Amino acid sequence: MKEKIAQAKLLLEALPYIKKYANQIFVIKYGGSAQINPDLKNRFAQDVILLHLVGIKPVIVHGGGKKINDLLDKLQINSEFVDGMRVTSEEVMEVVEMVLCGNINKEITNLLNMHGSKAIGITGKDGNFMTATPKDNGKYGLVGEINMIDNRVIENLLEEKFIPVIAPIASGNEINHPGFNINADLAASKIAASLGARKVIFLTDIVGVLDKDKNLLSTLTKEQIESYKADGTIHGGMIPKVDACLEAVNAGVEKAHIIDGRVEHSLLLEIFTSDGIGTVIRN
Amino acid sequence: MKEKIAQAKLLLEALPYIKKYANQIFVIKYGGSAQINPDLKNRFAQDVILLHLVGIKPVIVHGGGKKINDLLDKLQINSEFVDGMRVTSEEVMEVVEMVLCGNINKEITNLLNMHGSKAIGITGKDGNFMTATPKDNGKYGLVGEINMIDNRVIENLLEEKFIPVIAPIASGNEINHPGFNINADLAASKIAASLGARKVIFLTDIVGVLDKDKNLLSTLTKEQIESYKADGTIHGGMIPKVDACLEAVNAGVEKAHIIDGRVEHSLLLEIFTSDGIGTVIRN
Amino acid sequence: MKEKIAQAKLLLEALPYIKKYANQIFVIKYGGSAQINPDLKNRFAQDVILLHLVGIKPVIVHGGGKKINDLLDKLQINSEFVDGMRVTSEEVMEVVEMVLCGNINKEITNLLNMHGSKAIGITGKDGNFMTATPKDNGKYGLVGEINMIDNRVIENLLEEKFIPVIAPIASGNEINHPGFNINADLAASKIAASLGARKVIFLTDIVGVLDKDKNLLSTLTKEQIESYKADGTIHGGMIPKVDACLEAVNAGVEKAHIIDGRVEHSLLLEIFTSDGIGTVIRN
Amino acid sequence: MKEKIAQAKLLLEALPYIKKYANQIFVIKYGGSAQINPDLKNRFAQDVILLHLVGIKPVIVHGGGKKINDLLDKLQINSEFVDGMRVTSEEVMEVVEMVLCGNINKEITNLLNMHGSKAIGITGKDGNFMTATPKDNGKYGLVGEINMIDNRVIENLLEEKFIPVIAPIASGNEINHPGFNINADLAASKIAASLGARKVIFLTDIVGVLDKDKNLLSTLTKEQIESYKADGTIHGGMIPKVDACLEAVNAGVEKAHIIDGRVEHSLLLEIFTSDGIGTVIRN
Amino acid sequence: MKEKIAQAKLLLEALPYIKKYANQIFVIKYGGSAQINPDLKNRFAQDVILLHLVGIKPVIVHGGGKKINDLLDKLQINSEFVDGMRVTSEEVMEVVEMVLCGNINKEITNLLNMHGSKAIGITGKDGNFMTATPKDNGKYGLVGEINMIDNRVIENLLEEKFIPVIAPIASGNEINHPGFNINADLAASKIAASLGARKVIFLTDIVGVLDKDKNLLSTLTKEQIESYKADGTIHGGMIPKVDACLEAVNAGVEKAHIIDGRVEHSLLLEIFTSDGIGTVIRN
Amino acid sequence: MKEKIAQAKLLLEALPYIKKYANQIFVIKYGGSAQINPDLKNRFAQDVILLHLVGIKPVIVHGGGKKINDLLDKLQINSEFVDGMRVTSEEVMEVVEMVLCGNINKEITNLLNMHGSKAIGITGKDGNFMTATPKDNGKYGLVGEINMIDNRVIENLLEEKFIPVIAPIASGNEINHPGFNINADLAASKIAASLGARKVIFLTDIVGVLDKDKNLLSTLTKEQIESYKADGTIHGGMIPKVDACLEAVNAGVEKAHIIDGRVEHSLLLEIFTSDGIGTVIRN
Repeated sequence: MKEKIAQAKLLLEALPYIKKYANQIFVIKYGGSAQINPDLKNRFAQDVILLHLVGIKPVIVHGGGKKINDLLDKLQINSEFVDGMRVTSEEVMEVVEMVLCGNINKEITNLLNMHGSKAIGITGKDGNFMTATPKDNGKYGLVGEINMIDNRVIENLLEEKFIPVIAPIASGNEINHPGFNINADLAASKIAASLGARKVIFLTDIVGVLDKDKNLLSTLTKEQIESYKADGTIHGGMIPKVDACLEAVNAGVEKAHIIDGRVEHSLLLEIFTSDGIGTVIRN
Repeated sequence: MKEKIAQAKLLLEALPYIKKYANQIFVIKYGGSAQINPDLKNRFAQDVILLHLVGIKPVIVHGGGKKINDLLDKLQINSEFVDGMRVTSEEVMEVVEMVLCGNINKEITNLLNMHGSKAIGITGKDGNFMTATPKDNGKYGLVGEINMIDNRVIENLLEEKFIPVIAPIASGNEINHPGFNINADLAASKIAASLGARKVIFLTDIVGVLDKDKNLLSTLTKEQIESYKADGTIHGGMIPKVDACLEAVNAGVEKAHIIDGRVEHSLLLEIFTSDGIGTVIRN
Repeated sequence: MKEKIAQAKLLLEALPYIKKYANQIFVIKYGGSAQINPDLKNRFAQDVILLHLVGIKPVIVHGGGKKINDLLDKLQINSEFVDGMRVTSEEVMEVVEMVLCGNINKEITNLLNMHGSKAIGITGKDGNFMTATPKDNGKYGLVGEINMIDNRVIENLLEEKFIPVIAPIASGNEINHPGFNINADLAASKIAASLGARKVIFLTDIVGVLDKDKNLLSTLTKEQIESYKADGTIHGGMIPKVDACLEAVNAGVEKAHIIDGRVEHSLLLEIFTSDGIGTVIRN
Repeated sequence: MKEKIAQAKLLLEALPYIKKYANQIFVIKYGGSAQINPDLKNRFAQDVILLHLVGIKPVIVHGGGKKINDLLDKLQINSEFVDGMRVTSEEVMEVVEMVLCGNINKEITNLLNMHGSKAIGITGKDGNFMTATPKDNGKYGLVGEINMIDNRVIENLLEEKFIPVIAPIASGNEINHPGFNINADLAASKIAASLGARKVIFLTDIVGVLDKDKNLLSTLTKEQIESYKADGTIHGGMIPKVDACLEAVNAGVEKAHIIDGRVEHSLLLEIFTSDGIGTVIRN
Repeated sequence: MKEKIAQAKLLLEALPYIKKYANQIFVIKYGGSAQINPDLKNRFAQDVILLHLVGIKPVIVHGGGKKINDLLDKLQINSEFVDGMRVTSEEVMEVVEMVLCGNINKEITNLLNMHGSKAIGITGKDGNFMTATPKDNGKYGLVGEINMIDNRVIENLLEEKFIPVIAPIASGNEINHPGFNINADLAASKIAASLGARKVIFLTDIVGVLDKDKNLLSTLTKEQIESYKADGTIHGGMIPKVDACLEAVNAGVEKAHIIDGRVEHSLLLEIFTSDGIGTVIRN
Repeated sequence: MKEKIAQAKLLLEALPYIKKYANQIFVIKYGGSAQINPDLKNRFAQDVILLHLVGIKPVIVHGGGKKINDLLDKLQINSEFVDGMRVTSEEVMEVVEMVLCGNINKEITNLLNMHGSKAIGITGKDGNFMTATPKDNGKYGLVGEINMIDNRVIENLLEEKFIPVIAPIASGNEINHPGFNINADLAASKIAASLGARKVIFLTDIVGVLDKDKNLLSTLTKEQIESYKADGTIHGGMIPKVDACLEAVNAGVEKAHIIDGRVEHSLLLEIFTSDGIGTVIRN
């Protein structure tokens, strides 16, 4: 019996968070191991559905990762590289879209539905809700920068109690345009800002932002980020991640979280426990 | 970290129940120690608010107990007794109403509000929503039997996201009528039946229904109750409790629960864990 | 026939008032003889229901008066007095609440319902809609000053076509706080101001405000009140009454009325006849 | 003061009727002196508006009477007569429509609006809401019998709080058809039946139905009507009037009233006093 | 088959206009031959219904023309003339109203209904939606100038998917006032401005505004109109027409069209083809 | 001008159809040349948008055709064949889904959006709205038969004025299930039946159903189909097409159309002209 009571108490620890976040939009960037490991996938789905049931409105944005490269390889499509980034040709774009939207997006949608939600998968081409222009004057081909998000499509889905699952492809806003390949982190931040989300949460394969002694930095302000970037504490692949966070926070999202998707139920831990598990960036 | 993950898992154990009970009405008869012990009171309030936040619609029905006798004593009001039951004279009724509605009801309402809900206290006289006639031809004075429940008052409150807290007093449906004193257990069952509630739950000071060896009977059917009554397993004060359960179950409420309000968070344990802690009666 | 036609004409005299007051909120402070005399009680109920049927939204605020003292005496609770006012101890407060909310409020609610309306009785603790802080730093114990009114609870009731009947007790906005005892006249004025009421009407046991020759002053402006107070025309128990009126009028209520509740149907006379029967205070 | 109180009491006598008739449709056939005498016209308008304000939904149906004949005379249009009834030729029909719809209907509409309502005048051609076929195979030309009433047009007006004022002209349901001339009494009865009205009231220039000794028959049943027709008590012009009443009552209208429009405020007297002033026919 | 395909292509030419005008109000002044010639009448009705079906909200305003004079003549009513304009006496006004509202308005309403719409005919007296004061201090009798339009009556009809057909008579806003005779062109412009219409379209018996060489002027700006008036290009009966257009355009209506109602389907041609057929005036 | 008038007349020929089909659902199976030829694609988009603008609710179901085989070939995925049908292995299914949902569906969605509609692309996995079981006990692998359609997802989209574009993939209703490949014609018929569509229209690369002399059969009844199948008139690839039509018609869809998508604007021709261009099958 004691054990059971302890269990009920844990349930109640979530109470203040449930109250605080009722009817708030959380944009969750889903990626990394949590998107690959079967066990983590199921836990992610459970977490999202719990959020949904207690009144939070989750919006999922996912990336594509290795599967895109696999199919490009199988099809022997070679790519040019500029600044270490793959240039998205029309041929590449077709593969990107097939994998992102025709494979991964549907897999996530189905995963959530099979755990009991009503998820609907969309891309920027659906309802033409997200459009883009070429990044850096087209230096990277069809890699795009979002220039418009029409909230109504997502808001309609949220009103009908659906969980939107978004593949980061933007419409080119022209007939026969193949669309644009959008960085998933930036898509998540832009969508969060446009929807007036309370949080944007990045599920990654790292513990969070670390200081020079490899200790987790639990919270970061804009100023601290500047200083950590300057002294090299934040460097390499962490820079774009942190920049995506800043993008959202600067546009009015209250908090951006970088959390470790390799930890089981990391979403619930971050949202429903007092100290969380990753790094929180606020303005 | 492991401990935290265990915590998240516990949270998720509640998931199937949260899904199942979304938008369902639970009528909770609140009484006994859980209504007196300050610590249990706060836990009860937390439990009710958690139910509310995850989408359940709780309706609280409470009794009066010792406080009524205390005030009758202080006021030196003597009562006649018939069949061991106090006859409710007009003088007694006035005290019953003042204590139930002017003291206990407001205390519970305030308790729930202070934990963050929006509770509203009512009696059958509000909106004339519950009327009665004298029980057994008035043998017990103003002790009444419910003859009409107008769901609209409670339904209006539920629609507006209020938690109704009901004192078991019925309107006499006449000008200047002092009203009727209703047994709280029966009021809870009748209200549950009238509202089409999913559950009626009795918070008591007993473990549940016990067999002859003092072991808990986790589930009981109508037939088992008959047989246990016949052989004396169910006897004494347990008989009216079990009859109130049957009243509800026979009128279409899926399950009636008798649980131990002395156990912390007994409401959550009963509702959100697989085997519960008390006795469940179903048809 | 002639008599009947005269009757029809009288009915039509009310027409311009009915038009003018459609959908307007009238807060009515109910007290004095009209709350005690059985005949006047029924006439009051008829009047309120007629107002309701012709499209006015009545909100009733009542006091407690003699019944509180009676119960305090019976329970031999002694009170300290400061400035001639009874200090409300916790013990006194419990009695105040039981009488106001558990006795008088339910009696009025039932009275209105038995005449055909749907009235619901509430106090500031219901939905925590009215909170207070101690008056004059607690000099008078739990006598409070309203610091917040949340209109939504009353507005919800009005939308559902209920007549709210309000006992002037405010929530202390803390767990286990016994609440505050509020002067009923001031509660009526504050509630009228908060709801944007068209009128606040005080049913009293006086003819209205009188001049030095005991003639009724039919209308009073703010300036006249100042001058009558200065020269002693308005004095004694009339001062707080007039101040409650000013409170409402200064906060935007169009008119405050002090009328003689001892006159049968005084409410209808004041509202539906051209010259009314009491004193009107306007800004 | 006493006089005023008597006035308030008279107001309250209307209370049970106001309750009973809230949201009910009353179809009123307006005609006779009440439509001609300037003083009676204004009183009629006041009465209708009072009904409207206390929650009744009045629908006015009017006839044309003398004005049609006047214009036919001025235009020297001669008519054939069959069975003593004027045959409605196309030429006559044009005059009927101009007078009914372009003169009388607008006059009544304006009268009601000037007394403070929002009345809208329509004929069966508006929204094609009332269609007819020739009466007795066209024996009387364009005199028609209603064969369809589409309630939606009137119901839309009632929902928007308008008072519909209906000229008894029906659409011929064909392009270029001049429409049909409908007996106003029958139109009122048919419309009342179609709308599910609570009452149909005929304002006439007679006291009501009289027995052989010229005493008013306050109530009449179907059976009594048969018998009074048989013995000649009901005869002449009273027969079609009574038949129009029966038409409505047989189709489910609770009561049909024949009242004396020459009496001031006869509408209010009939509706809001216990014994009324005319003859009531019920099933 | 080729012919059919050509037909489909023509249908599609309307597409951009249908998109652009969805949910927009078009006020159409109906008059001239299109109101007299049976064939043109039917085509007009078809055109209006097509507009309605593809999502445009047509509002029809009509004049009276020859029929008023005919009836005045038949009734031998003589009129005084001032500045070449007939003075509208009360006697004349009665005829104007009977013809406009009791004859022409109902004919148009019926015409539209017989082609499948739900049209409702009204005048300014209905719902008192349009009031006027005497033009030029009453120099022309009951010829009025609109001083108030209450959009709600028309908007209610539009919401219920009715097509309003308006006779240009204004209420005099007094009991027993015969109303005012309003110039139909000006009524159309004022109504268009008040409703925030997208277009006001005048169906006339001329090709449009012509230059000195009798060539059609397809578009006109305010400045061009001034200059053409100055040099006499626009003169005579064209001046008030053009002024009515300016009235609407200056009040915010995007475009005013003068088109040739003698051309079959001129409404469709003007609205759904790229260059239209008449003269467009824009700000 | 004459030409223009002819054009307007053509526009009006569509009038009765527009009236008849307002608010009706049309399910359109999009395939064949109309899905490949750039010119026909644009015309198809225009046609669909015109339908939408005049009040019809189009639902598009598409197939995949050659593109699936192309990608299977490029990826050198070999398939087993049973009864001449390719068995859908998991490997094949992944390609089918990527092409149908990640390529073709988005292309059509974008095409419609670029012509001015708001289209949203979905598959049975979105909102889990269409589930299937293996056809013929899995003889063909993941080729499925629809066993459930949840209309709410499509109905929500239609309510929000979106055009749903559906890829014929069904959910397997299990975690990690790759889904089922559904015959697009049957999906269209089943969806039409489930939604209560007025029409299902198949865009094909044939003229329609032909008789033995290669003349078009404009209409076909169930009985005629039986007899034409029996005598071999309907044979080969036409049989499943006709069976899909019967499936819809037997389930209550009023008409099923087989039309020639190679003809420009064939959709408009079939819907808005009196004799259509293909074969209609009705019950």
